[in-house]
Amino acid sequence: MISVEEALERINQHATTRAPRMIRSVDSLGLVLAADIKSDIDSPPHDKALMDGYAVVASDIVPGVELTILEEVTAGDVPTKPVTAGTATRIMTGAPIPDGADAVVMVERTEVVGNNGTTVRIDFDAAQPGLNIMPRGESVREGDVVLRSGRLIRPIEMGVLAECGATEIAAYKRPSVAILSTGNELVPPEKRPNAGQIRNSNGPMLKALVQRAGSDAVNLGVGRDERADLDRLVQRGLEEDVLVLSGGVSAGVLDLVPEVLASNGVEQVFHKVHLKPGKPVWFGIKQDPRGDRLVFGLPGNPVSSLVCFELFVRPALASLAGQAFGNVERRTACLATTHSRYSDRPTYFPARLFERDGQPQVEPLAWKGSADLRTLADANCLALFPPSENEFAAGVVIEVFLI
Amino acid sequence: MISVEEALERINQHATTRAPRMIRSVDSLGLVLAADIKSDIDSPPHDKALMDGYAVVASDIVPGVELTILEEVTAGDVPTKPVTAGTATRIMTGAPIPDGADAVVMVERTEVVGNNGTTVRIDFDAAQPGLNIMPRGESVREGDVVLRSGRLIRPIEMGVLAECGATEIAAYKRPSVAILSTGNELVPPEKRPNAGQIRNSNGPMLKALVQRAGSDAVNLGVGRDERADLDRLVQRGLEEDVLVLSGGVSAGVLDLVPEVLASNGVEQVFHKVHLKPGKPVWFGIKQDPRGDRLVFGLPGNPVSSLVCFELFVRPALASLAGQAFGNVERRTACLATTHSRYSDRPTYFPARLFERDGQPQVEPLAWKGSADLRTLADANCLALFPPSENEFAAGVVIEVFLI
Repeated sequence: MISVEEALERINQHATTRAPRMIRSVDSLGLVLAADIKSDIDSPPHDKALMDGYAVVASDIVPGVELTILEEVTAGDVPTKPVTAGTATRIMTGAPIPDGADAVVMVERTEVVGNNGTTVRIDFDAAQPGLNIMPRGESVREGDVVLRSGRLIRPIEMGVLAECGATEIAAYKRPSVAILSTGNELVPPEKRPNAGQIRNSNGPMLKALVQRAGSDAVNLGVGRDERADLDRLVQRGLEEDVLVLSGGVSAGVLDLVPEVLASNGVEQVFHKVHLKPGKPVWFGIKQDPRGDRLVFGLPGNPVSSLVCFELFVRPALASLAGQAFGNVERRTACLATTHSRYSDRPTYFPARLFERDGQPQVEPLAWKGSADLRTLADANCLALFPPSENEFAAGVVIEVFLI
Repeated sequence: MISVEEALERINQHATTRAPRMIRSVDSLGLVLAADIKSDIDSPPHDKALMDGYAVVASDIVPGVELTILEEVTAGDVPTKPVTAGTATRIMTGAPIPDGADAVVMVERTEVVGNNGTTVRIDFDAAQPGLNIMPRGESVREGDVVLRSGRLIRPIEMGVLAECGATEIAAYKRPSVAILSTGNELVPPEKRPNAGQIRNSNGPMLKALVQRAGSDAVNLGVGRDERADLDRLVQRGLEEDVLVLSGGVSAGVLDLVPEVLASNGVEQVFHKVHLKPGKPVWFGIKQDPRGDRLVFGLPGNPVSSLVCFELFVRPALASLAGQAFGNVERRTACLATTHSRYSDRPTYFPARLFERDGQPQVEPLAWKGSADLRTLADANCLALFPPSENEFAAGVVIEVFLI
């Protein structure tokens, strides 16, 4: 049985970034850039006033000087008159600096005087050239690379793309993921289970996990442990970048899933990983010119499914989308209570992370086993207990995965 | 001028949760429950095998006992024969326990013997009643509240809703937010700016921030500093739960925005807050039987807009959606370098949070002022510097806001 680390390495080998495509910037939030973005303009596009005040010739400024007001320029306007010795232009924040002016004196240090308000008295000792002016191109010059290929597009990047006129960009597409729950015992959520049946809770949970990971999800519903049905659904699932199955990978006699996958050209990469819960996890690939299709077989119980999704599927989705492989947020925290459920396998236990006296603390929940979805819903993290022959004392530092 | 804390308190008074509505569970990811969810079934719905093995009568089990195999039961099947003394049923994980059986012996401790595989030898010392059985209803009983009103619906909750048959639920709707950028200098991103113009980068950034906060965004584009145009767009914006304006709230002569808002029935709650950047931020409400419309006027430069969105708009959106007011993630970190940009106002500075020797460190970026969106794009947090007359030494602990 391989370790979690080895499993991740093998997944990483196959989870290669897909070919980029052109997309409208307004639809690109959460995607990754596949080419550098250059600005098509200087920013600011003109020498710009950083204050409301008067644009002046700096060498004019001595205490109490009076200057003739030429005009008023607001953001969006273009100055029409050059400023020369003895004159000034009333200017608003963001507006272009008139030719000839090389400083802006803030309005609070000025007073309009004379007839008809045509003259301004400047109550200011001296102005250095450049005062309160942001020079053209200081933030960005035309042709500068403003965002590098590989950059994740967050709201700020949306602003930068708009500023630089990048309305169409090359980006990696969101991976598409098909979700298929398998098992004769499963009925859809809208049906009341008969004797021996349970509802398919994994399908909706996994679909939501995929969506939250920024990928597109298709829930194929329930596949029964029956060859023709599974075959049809697996073929449908292999049209997407990733097929996530839940159930059908443990050692039960009706576990047809690996067989059906093989007959559809999916090669097993590994089966079983040294962890708890989630030991029976299965991973395989189908070669495809568009990039290998990845197939994950997750154990059927919800907690195992969740743990295996977070550990194995999420990093693969990140990698397909052009991000770094492995983006689960890990932290460390002090164990708040003694934990006596030790095992010879690394164990991921539903837990609650909280702060006490400014220190992160983690408390494992009173979890009733791998089907206990309700207790899992009270968790905000998984606590990782390494293999041990002894209980874990309160206060020891362990690793936690945020969920 | 009021403090950030007072501004937040006033916003909180008006950002009341809107009336809930019924929604399909499959569309509810990220919403907040407006009523308790009860299970319509026991979970598990039957006494359930936790292992592959044999369902037996516990009192039968002595080392080497041989039992007659009655049948085989898989998850999804219903047992047809009661287990009595001297007999056993082959059973798979998840399958219902047959009547009469009160323990499951794992398959690894058994061996099929006799002709035609009709008998199983149990190599096990003794079985306690209940061994490897999860009793019916142990996780959830019919009628139990499984999720409380007020709960945020994450992927795990999606699974719980499915398990309990809650296909339609009462939830608070996602707030809708109109975004309007104002200023004669603004042109849309697809246009090349002429002299004196800049592109509207705030609209796309704010739309993405709203989407990332889990709300629905409508970008109304650019409103010019001209009464009729602004009036039409403000009326359109007031159809949504929230109207976010950027620009038009500082002291420039053409700042028509507060006037146009007043003429549309929007009452000012506050104008100007003691912080940097973002001092001119404006907040008002329009009374409405569906819940007050909230109107935020954010300063026009991108960094101020971002800071004011994170500080003031995001908590309001959370509250409208039924979550706790104020959900910005704050942490503390050590200042990695000396910071000499002190001010008499609390200052939010674009910065980079990273770990060194396991300790969070924060480094303010070489930011060129409030229009410098490119440097802002390198930030992953805002560092909060309290009012000070002195520079901040490397190593001091400050608060950071993740972005």
